[in-house]
Amino acid sequence: MRTCYTGDVGKQYLDQTVTLFGWVHRRRDHGGVIFIDLRDRAGLAQVVVDPDNVQAFAIAESIRNEYCIRITGLVRVRPEGTVNPDLASGEVEVLCREIEVLNASVTPPFQLDDDNLSETTRLTHRVLDLRRPQMQNNLMLRYRVAMEVRKYLDELGFVDIETPMLTKSTPEGARDYLVPSRVNAGQFYALPQSPQLFKQMLMVSGFDRYYQITKCFRDEDLRADRQPEFTQIDCETSFLNEAEIREIFEGMIRQVFARVQGTELPQPFPTMTWAEAMRRYGSDKPDLRVKLEFTDIDDLMRDVDFKVFSAPANDPASRVVALRVPGGAAMPRSEIDNYTKFVAIYGAKGLAYIKVNDAAAIPEGLQSPIVKNIHADALRQLIERTGAQSGDLLFFGADKAKVVNDAMGALRVKIGHSDFGKTHGLFETGWQPLWVIDFPMFEYDEEEGRYFAAHHPFTSPKDGHEDRLESDPGGALAKAYDMVLNGWELGGGSVRIHRADIQQKVFSALNIDEEEARLKFGFLLDALQYGAPPHGGVAFGLDRLVTLMAGAESIRDVIAFPKTQRAQCLLTQAPSAVDEKQLRELHIRLRATDVK
Amino acid sequence: MRTCYTGDVGKQYLDQTVTLFGWVHRRRDHGGVIFIDLRDRAGLAQVVVDPDNVQAFAIAESIRNEYCIRITGLVRVRPEGTVNPDLASGEVEVLCREIEVLNASVTPPFQLDDDNLSETTRLTHRVLDLRRPQMQNNLMLRYRVAMEVRKYLDELGFVDIETPMLTKSTPEGARDYLVPSRVNAGQFYALPQSPQLFKQMLMVSGFDRYYQITKCFRDEDLRADRQPEFTQIDCETSFLNEAEIREIFEGMIRQVFARVQGTELPQPFPTMTWAEAMRRYGSDKPDLRVKLEFTDIDDLMRDVDFKVFSAPANDPASRVVALRVPGGAAMPRSEIDNYTKFVAIYGAKGLAYIKVNDAAAIPEGLQSPIVKNIHADALRQLIERTGAQSGDLLFFGADKAKVVNDAMGALRVKIGHSDFGKTHGLFETGWQPLWVIDFPMFEYDEEEGRYFAAHHPFTSPKDGHEDRLESDPGGALAKAYDMVLNGWELGGGSVRIHRADIQQKVFSALNIDEEEARLKFGFLLDALQYGAPPHGGVAFGLDRLVTLMAGAESIRDVIAFPKTQRAQCLLTQAPSAVDEKQLRELHIRLRATDVK
Repeated sequence: MRTCYTGDVGKQYLDQTVTLFGWVHRRRDHGGVIFIDLRDRAGLAQVVVDPDNVQAFAIAESIRNEYCIRITGLVRVRPEGTVNPDLASGEVEVLCREIEVLNASVTPPFQLDDDNLSETTRLTHRVLDLRRPQMQNNLMLRYRVAMEVRKYLDELGFVDIETPMLTKSTPEGARDYLVPSRVNAGQFYALPQSPQLFKQMLMVSGFDRYYQITKCFRDEDLRADRQPEFTQIDCETSFLNEAEIREIFEGMIRQVFARVQGTELPQPFPTMTWAEAMRRYGSDKPDLRVKLEFTDIDDLMRDVDFKVFSAPANDPASRVVALRVPGGAAMPRSEIDNYTKFVAIYGAKGLAYIKVNDAAAIPEGLQSPIVKNIHADALRQLIERTGAQSGDLLFFGADKAKVVNDAMGALRVKIGHSDFGKTHGLFETGWQPLWVIDFPMFEYDEEEGRYFAAHHPFTSPKDGHEDRLESDPGGALAKAYDMVLNGWELGGGSVRIHRADIQQKVFSALNIDEEEARLKFGFLLDALQYGAPPHGGVAFGLDRLVTLMAGAESIRDVIAFPKTQRAQCLLTQAPSAVDEKQLRELHIRLRATDVK
Repeated sequence: MRTCYTGDVGKQYLDQTVTLFGWVHRRRDHGGVIFIDLRDRAGLAQVVVDPDNVQAFAIAESIRNEYCIRITGLVRVRPEGTVNPDLASGEVEVLCREIEVLNASVTPPFQLDDDNLSETTRLTHRVLDLRRPQMQNNLMLRYRVAMEVRKYLDELGFVDIETPMLTKSTPEGARDYLVPSRVNAGQFYALPQSPQLFKQMLMVSGFDRYYQITKCFRDEDLRADRQPEFTQIDCETSFLNEAEIREIFEGMIRQVFARVQGTELPQPFPTMTWAEAMRRYGSDKPDLRVKLEFTDIDDLMRDVDFKVFSAPANDPASRVVALRVPGGAAMPRSEIDNYTKFVAIYGAKGLAYIKVNDAAAIPEGLQSPIVKNIHADALRQLIERTGAQSGDLLFFGADKAKVVNDAMGALRVKIGHSDFGKTHGLFETGWQPLWVIDFPMFEYDEEEGRYFAAHHPFTSPKDGHEDRLESDPGGALAKAYDMVLNGWELGGGSVRIHRADIQQKVFSALNIDEEEARLKFGFLLDALQYGAPPHGGVAFGLDRLVTLMAGAESIRDVIAFPKTQRAQCLLTQAPSAVDEKQLRELHIRLRATDVK
């Protein structure tokens, strides 16, 4: 049995004989002595093999990197000048008395400390990639986060209840992963996109406080940071209002950060309405570390001689905003050009700007081709309202509201995170959480000409907004909230509808008739009839939370065995072809035209 | 906000005003006063609504069973003679001051306290079924068990690491549930039958101690107590031997029983080799509460004049055993006849028996048609070896070993659990755990004429049995162990093969050639090359463990939303037909001949 993890061998074991298990991280021969950096999940320890110890030395000479070995030896202080302050075990070394090779290793396809490996190499050799200290730390962090979540929720009486993985397909929302049934020919299960309906039914069953850390599935085209299966911290509670629910769950995130990283998050988290977030940041998940915000100038630009501004300023579906960049006049022209290209990605047709050379001299102190088309009064009010100072830069967005929000919102973040932003005080490091609240109930889809649920169709309208469900669906707000951290949506939730009549009105607004509603959600509607309690909840993305906390580049770095963007596992070669017999048993066949 | 759960209203709240939320369990009008039993997940409280409180009384008159209400009132001592000692809140009642209907309920399809509901009714109306106190208790118990497992493993440095749900199909073992890939036309994922290969790879990656409470999937024909998806407590550790691994995990079960139920299990658990368990009980999961065991009598019956005994006694693949039932001579003939029918289920062609009227008088003290065919010396030795006393009964099994083990093993349990057994000291109540160890590596399949892995193909042979993999596969024992509790297999595991050469030998014994091995398990074989550590683990069935602890009849009673034996969810109607468009996207079509 081992004495301790190798990473934990410290002065407390001085002059004691210890037994360690681990992998050969590096072997060096130095002055006739062999040094082995022995590695396990806790870290490294230095093992010294003296040539006097003939037997051990012979074995030590034969071992190579990534051999798995057991060593027994005496802990002693490292000679002066060789102490390694970067290691927990850096003050001591282990003088090897006995060494045993538990398993040899062929030469690994890459060095574990190579930081320039392609993602393909890493995922193909994931077993070795996971040996890298960074990946070990990421998965250990993930575990500690999940465990702290459990402890917090346990203390508050939340009960982990497992919901099914083989569920019913509901052609709403994202695409389902389907599972053909063998016993029920021609029928399919769906893997859950979330346990939403089940957790609501558990509330109706009286479990009062539920949670689950569970896999969810969406068969979507994978963008950079999506996975076909992802992990949700899924929670629901009865009898609490919006503010009470938010208090519980920001407390959870606060406790996780405090216990896992020793970081204190603000108490309480600030809240901001969705309308304000869109107005000031063009985003429902603003990164508050970026010290830039929009100034609305529609009213100033209605009568200017510049169609690019005046047309959207006079269109209720459009908006015109200025983004003041303090000190931005110093920004090189090339950077501005790059931003012009950048906003084009989001559909912006250009990126107007004004350099404020002298804020007191209007218009001559303002440098921009557009200045001549905007009358002095508008310019004066623009400078006043944005608070622009000499040396600042103003960027402008003027288009359909969605384009402006997307383009200028992204630009705001881009500038904030740029070297310019970081050296000009436009970016504040640290954790800046935020609740965005009062989301709209519905979003209008221009193409399909109908409303969709902004959150999901079980979200309760704000008190007093019930009538708007019919009279003004676009103006109806929801008891919905998102937790945002540094520009990432960490989680979101809502108070649910617990009354069948309100649920009916929402379905009407969504153009879901009674038959369709029964077919898709009949079991939930039934459940609501039997004294369903007021309830609400939230779901957090565990992958994202851990990625943020780990400072990782991708959620793939906090998942042990992730899929590629083609939804493949390079390690196990999933998915793969299967036997014809298996398909026959499942009552399906391949479409010949699709499969070569 | 509520003061506490209704079930927790006790004397500590005396003379205080409390606010409670819950469901109307029962409403009684008695002497002009309305009594409401208010229920939540913690239990019941009695609420009294006085007619003097006109407003509250009017509301109370309108409410029906299963209405969801909020009440505020004063806690007072119940009048003498009305104390209910069965309830935690039984000494007090709440004098209602205010009552609010949070949600009405239509009349439920059944009474919650009806104990004679069909399974179909219960599963169709699962949301209401889950309101029943027994189901609430079962799921709360399940949660507490899982949480205690996590706490125990956390303390020992086990790390919960999630493994994928969308994995590769390996046509070995049970039938896979398949998931067609949209992006990779013609290819399929499989839902995991267990995280076996992934957890072994995590050991190779150096995570050292892993666990996961996770869903596993098997598309098998469902027997009484199987579910398509079930939950496994899956664990793996490096650098420990069999005994060390068993010690950790029996410690886990012991701690769970102690903390959740206050029950002390023996320390350590007894161990028994597989060979001994089969010899004494005909079962690899003997119920040690039953105080009956087999006596081998092959040697005594080789030369008797009774072919039914002498033929199997002379066949190495068969066995002849006696099962002594103390006091069994008093068993009525009808009961013996029933047992004869019972063993036929297991393939036994009959059930010979001898009533021992006088153990000292051989043969005349022995009552049975078979006695005349067995010579006196064999009878004498039989009585001596079984230790039969006057008044006992001896049952006999004589057939192929498998038939004898199955039939007589089942009979042993049946008699032990019978009224006769329980009133004659043949059954001892309580928890009787056991480790069954030293399983064989392989089982020979007569039909297919080849060996199969008894556990799985990654199980390590016992030290010194490596050579038998080739020379005597049937005699090779494995470092495999099962934990048995009261006749249920709670979990099982093994030390794994960590050397590629031994793994190769096992594949050979299983007739898996190199190409096939590479195709199916190439990623594991690759991993083993890179200094794989010695490792082993165990997996427990959480559903079974909780069923046992809850004393439930079926694992369906400890699963929130189980499937029927036709693998259907009666609540949500899964599986179901799906849109043709969905199938097209997945590159599959239905087989017209199968689907009407």
